[in-house]
Amino acid sequence: MRGVSGTEQLDPRIAARLKRDRDGLVAAVVRQFDTGEVLMLAWMDDEALRRTLSTGRATYWSRSRGEYWVKGATSGHHQFVRSVALDCDGDALLVSVDQVGPACHTGSRTCFTDELEITAERQEMTA
Amino acid sequence: MRGVSGTEQLDPRIAARLKRDRDGLVAAVVRQFDTGEVLMLAWMDDEALRRTLSTGRATYWSRSRGEYWVKGATSGHHQFVRSVALDCDGDALLVSVDQVGPACHTGSRTCFTDELEITAERQEMTA
Repeated sequence: MRGVSGTEQLDPRIAARLKRDRDGLVAAVVRQFDTGEVLMLAWMDDEALRRTLSTGRATYWSRSRGEYWVKGATSGHHQFVRSVALDCDGDALLVSVDQVGPACHTGSRTCFTDELEITAERQEMTA
Repeated sequence: MRGVSGTEQLDPRIAARLKRDRDGLVAAVVRQFDTGEVLMLAWMDDEALRRTLSTGRATYWSRSRGEYWVKGATSGHHQFVRSVALDCDGDALLVSVDQVGPACHTGSRTCFTDELEITAERQEMTA
């Protein structure tokens, strides 16, 4: 594949810090870099993370299609990566991007549009 | 268990929309409700989500300990839930909370403190 040879691997210092699930994946939380808006959640394996860091274009592993997926490659809704941070236990990434157009395939800016009802009485900080 | 009886279940209209992984879990992205800061990523099954919605206190499933976990129960770093949204494909939740103290067990405000180096040349929106 273009830009990928058998010798290219994720930096082993990063790979050593990843705590992958049984499918070899970590969760990637994607937010708009300047507003902080949480746009979507996707999945990365080592190779998707390597491509993301080395190309600056957010690249995920599609669990449903079983293939790598460069966000925007078909939709034009690119994600230009500004920063990537790993969490304390190595099983989640926070990917800050500049999102072109809507992040969601439904056409919404963010994928998190389905508000669930909280049935609890509001608890305050002083509770 | 206190507050949980065998007849209490997650609203079936919500349960029907969840797309759980092989362990019955969905990812929960947790952010501070007012600043939007992404604090941590955790995991919920149906019961953790039910408890979160019905108590207003963020409750997760600990994959490492294999038990429910009310954030702050031992640390005092409570999360008072303001809103919960499900994403378009039902496998991730965005939980907006009022976080007391640091969200991370390391004492950091957020768990995402380990910045990874992006080796790509900066690509601009016009690329």
